[in-house]
Amino acid sequence: KQKEFQSASGKTSSTNREAFRDAVKTVLERRLFYIPSFEIYGSVAGFYDYGPPGCALKQNFTQFWRQHFVLEESMLEVECPAVTPEVVLKASGHVDRFTDLMVTDVVTGDCHRADHLLEAALQALLDGKPKPLDTQERQAVHHLLATVEELNVKQLGDALEQYGVKAPETNNDISRPFPFNLMFKTSIGPRGDQVGYLRPETAQGIFVNFRHLLYSNGGKLPFAAAQIGQSFRNEISPRAGLLRVREFTQAEIEHFCNPDAKDHPKFQSIAREQPLLFSRALQMSEEKQPQAMQLGDAVSQSIIANQTLAYFIGRTYLFLLRVGINPKRLRFRQHLANEMAHYAEDCWDAEVECSYGWVECVGLADRSAYDLRAHATKSKTDMSAYEPFPDGSRMVDVLVAAVDKREVGKTYKKDGKAITEALESLPEEEKACMQADLAAGKPCKVTVGDAEFAITAAMVQIKQEKKKLTGRNFVPSVIEPSFGVGRIIYCMFEHCYATRKGDEKRSLFHFKPIVAPVKATVFPLFAQPTFIDQAQAVAALLTAAGLSTIVDSTGASIGKRYARTDEIGVPFAVTVDHQTLEDSTVTVRDRDSTTQVRVPIAEVQALLTELVKGRTWESMQQQYPTHASAADDN
Amino acid sequence: KQKEFQSASGKTSSTNREAFRDAVKTVLERRLFYIPSFEIYGSVAGFYDYGPPGCALKQNFTQFWRQHFVLEESMLEVECPAVTPEVVLKASGHVDRFTDLMVTDVVTGDCHRADHLLEAALQALLDGKPKPLDTQERQAVHHLLATVEELNVKQLGDALEQYGVKAPETNNDISRPFPFNLMFKTSIGPRGDQVGYLRPETAQGIFVNFRHLLYSNGGKLPFAAAQIGQSFRNEISPRAGLLRVREFTQAEIEHFCNPDAKDHPKFQSIAREQPLLFSRALQMSEEKQPQAMQLGDAVSQSIIANQTLAYFIGRTYLFLLRVGINPKRLRFRQHLANEMAHYAEDCWDAEVECSYGWVECVGLADRSAYDLRAHATKSKTDMSAYEPFPDGSRMVDVLVAAVDKREVGKTYKKDGKAITEALESLPEEEKACMQADLAAGKPCKVTVGDAEFAITAAMVQIKQEKKKLTGRNFVPSVIEPSFGVGRIIYCMFEHCYATRKGDEKRSLFHFKPIVAPVKATVFPLFAQPTFIDQAQAVAALLTAAGLSTIVDSTGASIGKRYARTDEIGVPFAVTVDHQTLEDSTVTVRDRDSTTQVRVPIAEVQALLTELVKGRTWESMQQQYPTHASAADDN
Repeated sequence: KQKEFQSASGKTSSTNREAFRDAVKTVLERRLFYIPSFEIYGSVAGFYDYGPPGCALKQNFTQFWRQHFVLEESMLEVECPAVTPEVVLKASGHVDRFTDLMVTDVVTGDCHRADHLLEAALQALLDGKPKPLDTQERQAVHHLLATVEELNVKQLGDALEQYGVKAPETNNDISRPFPFNLMFKTSIGPRGDQVGYLRPETAQGIFVNFRHLLYSNGGKLPFAAAQIGQSFRNEISPRAGLLRVREFTQAEIEHFCNPDAKDHPKFQSIAREQPLLFSRALQMSEEKQPQAMQLGDAVSQSIIANQTLAYFIGRTYLFLLRVGINPKRLRFRQHLANEMAHYAEDCWDAEVECSYGWVECVGLADRSAYDLRAHATKSKTDMSAYEPFPDGSRMVDVLVAAVDKREVGKTYKKDGKAITEALESLPEEEKACMQADLAAGKPCKVTVGDAEFAITAAMVQIKQEKKKLTGRNFVPSVIEPSFGVGRIIYCMFEHCYATRKGDEKRSLFHFKPIVAPVKATVFPLFAQPTFIDQAQAVAALLTAAGLSTIVDSTGASIGKRYARTDEIGVPFAVTVDHQTLEDSTVTVRDRDSTTQVRVPIAEVQALLTELVKGRTWESMQQQYPTHASAADDN
Repeated sequence: KQKEFQSASGKTSSTNREAFRDAVKTVLERRLFYIPSFEIYGSVAGFYDYGPPGCALKQNFTQFWRQHFVLEESMLEVECPAVTPEVVLKASGHVDRFTDLMVTDVVTGDCHRADHLLEAALQALLDGKPKPLDTQERQAVHHLLATVEELNVKQLGDALEQYGVKAPETNNDISRPFPFNLMFKTSIGPRGDQVGYLRPETAQGIFVNFRHLLYSNGGKLPFAAAQIGQSFRNEISPRAGLLRVREFTQAEIEHFCNPDAKDHPKFQSIAREQPLLFSRALQMSEEKQPQAMQLGDAVSQSIIANQTLAYFIGRTYLFLLRVGINPKRLRFRQHLANEMAHYAEDCWDAEVECSYGWVECVGLADRSAYDLRAHATKSKTDMSAYEPFPDGSRMVDVLVAAVDKREVGKTYKKDGKAITEALESLPEEEKACMQADLAAGKPCKVTVGDAEFAITAAMVQIKQEKKKLTGRNFVPSVIEPSFGVGRIIYCMFEHCYATRKGDEKRSLFHFKPIVAPVKATVFPLFAQPTFIDQAQAVAALLTAAGLSTIVDSTGASIGKRYARTDEIGVPFAVTVDHQTLEDSTVTVRDRDSTTQVRVPIAEVQALLTELVKGRTWESMQQQYPTHASAADDN
């Protein structure tokens, strides 16, 4: 079933996709990988619990992320609160701009996302409902559908009116669209006067700590900081299961570097990886198909903006493969120019194909110095780093403020000294502005503490001078890989789901051992104390090595018990049989091949540890005798 | 310094305690173990970030907690959202009762905890401010101070008035105390009509999933579920640094069992552990001192209510020791009768002594069936489990409702059938009530859906019958160990802090290797490429094994570099020296003893892995030659 879906992916009818999704969902819910939250109270849309296997898998996933990124790249990991005072999110722009456009049902007051309603209405028209369109109409609808995300609030409102879009289910009229802020609002402290929000992303906690982190890194660039934690978005009408939720785990990296030095020392280690790249050019081409391309070529051909961004694309690619994403259903799509924020240098999304279509799972963006500058301005904190020039000293043109102290003192008396200092230490850009304004005869001001003072051309002359500098201060660029943990895990569920050949009812998950929620099931062949005790002892050995293990000592047939453990994707099964009691060996079965080998109990702990870390089953088969099972495995 | 403080603990003056606390805090903040959150915007009380070493340590801590509890006890771990709809917290009692008593400064509006103000005022009186008290006054103040936590809102208000307590700093009048709910409130969804809160504890997520978890465990008891996650409390005026914060990590376990079967199969494994127990009787005694006692004895002498509660006390004791809590400064204090909720059977707090005094770090409570019953009632969901009698079937007295259907039908017509069914399926307790009420001629009702129907003695006769039952349904008891992760970590910081003998300025943390934020520092003896490259290669080996490693290749002396790594508690240092280039061996230094051995590079990965997992340094010294360092370590 999975193969059918995969081979036909993109061409499959939506009915097949939904049938596949339902099949996966049925197992996931029955085995409690996830559970709609607060179910005994009727649930709340957009909230899910991870049940025991889901929670274990998610833990393994984030631990592996830590190993792959934080440890291997020596990143600085931080943990910041979810509750965030308004000023931080005002600076980042979230208070003003983190919105979706919403319409309400004018009768019931129900809320809907304006873009989703328009898209659904346009799709219905294309599907010939209520009646077939002529060619010209068809083209217009097609064009509009492709550009819905670019419409501003007025254009979106006009389009909804033009096509007479009504509220779903009730068919009532809808309001004009208006922006709805997606942050959960709260109040900090008992007075009720300090507004706070639940963070909509984990990145801001890193930015506000930039100075500390730079200090912690000995003042040197580049370095990367990371945070794994919960983020919150009060979605208007969340659907799409685990893909669009109101509380979710993010894993974000902020790599800080000199804007003039975006090469990466470890770039060669991933330069020959060949992910599917869906560049801007390919998206605008006739075929609209991504292409496998070496990352080294993508950088040398300027398809990816710089080595560091490409390095993280490569590391992300390797990470996704190692947790079980199918590389044929993974592409890196470059943002079109109109998708990117004005300050962004280049953005790529890791998109994974699942039954919902192509889903953005990781965003990789070169955000220039935008975030640090925003916080520098709002908090009046220096967010710059200093780097010596690699080639020694340089003669540089700088602007110098030559203050006429007598003139300043005459006007401002005792404030004169502070004003002089403020003028002399103005940032380069502000000096340039003042120079231009004074020349044009415009009024100029300087800020000292909370006060502003008018400055005249008589008080200061801004002039260019040559100066010998050994280095420079600059606000670092940020390259940000941002992972949606739940989305990747959901796609992984779909990619790892399969049914046993010849038995459509026996489903299994081909989880990679490193993320599998349970590493081994131990089976006593018979439900008798001698077998059970021995099985418990083997399980205790594995548990002590940190391998999550369950013992299934129910009386069911070994075949049935294998089916049960396959269903939650346990990669290895250890069976205690008659021979165990004689020679202290057990059989170890590989979930994917269903083959078995016989292994001494004394070695089983070390071997399973190696298998979980990545040793191949084939190498096990070479080392140990094959065990032909008496029990029927199918 | 630590020893001085320890040996004098409890008797030290508060000045010494504060000096010690400041010394620890200075290192923790300078090395970024933690950082006041949003510092560039002036911080917000009660919020802290974990910086790189703090975050790494906390991760190691929670991973070890998982290993010690979840894996070794086969618990079912879940992960539920922090945002929680009101109904859940209404059922749990938090909406109505999760409050602290607050007073406001009548002029400024500043908010204060009423009990803290009273305590401070009483303490000042005892310290002779504004003037010495006579013996009688002294006794009264003493008594009141000891019972502040038991005062209700009126008594607390009266006491504040009686002693003329004013607002701190301003000395203004204060308001009467009133309850302030400590939950952060928010709104779910775009309509703004669904109230939500940030969960004040992680436990509720487990309770609402009880039915799923029971199913997942094959319908069998006992089993335990666990959750690690953020909880939120909008404290009125948080002080005390990391000990009282508004967002914190909890690790909670809910062990569900038959109320009649609280023995624990693994009890013997901890029965001989001897933590300091501070039982109710000892607290009421003259000496008021805890006593070391075997847990087996504590249960057999009925000091601890049951084996399961004692088992978790034992496992908690072992856990705290393994993460570095000093057993002499750890006691388990039993709640006095007036401290416990009415439904609780027995409660013990693991309290750890630090510079703030004895701090509650873990609560262990037998909460009977309170939580499950509360949710069963509110959600109208069956929260019972079924267990067969261990001794086969039993003849049991049951109450049976014999309904006169004609009589019911006469009065209620078409509702008759539903009413009959409702009467027959009444829970045992309600049948007993109805039997008594009918006998006493009181009015009786039965609920069907949303409607209530009056029931007369003519309609139903409740009578006792003998019935053969093979088992029974019951709402399980819950035994709840609840860990405050940040509090334990803070106490651990204090317990692990020390200075090098003879050098008060060289501080270090004696972190246990399992929780240490960095496991090894690799030093090239000289800052030259041959040494640095070799050091990088060794570090890569260690990182690949999941051991967090840093390379310090600054030009500072090896003694200075050791001091720097000691300061963040790195347990092992690996040095690449001249001999390394000749024979591929490195020196490994133990932080605590400062002794070194020489080890082949090929073995260093496996050895450090073993050391982190608990292998002793002494066994290393027996296996490898001692290296007498040329570098001055002190």
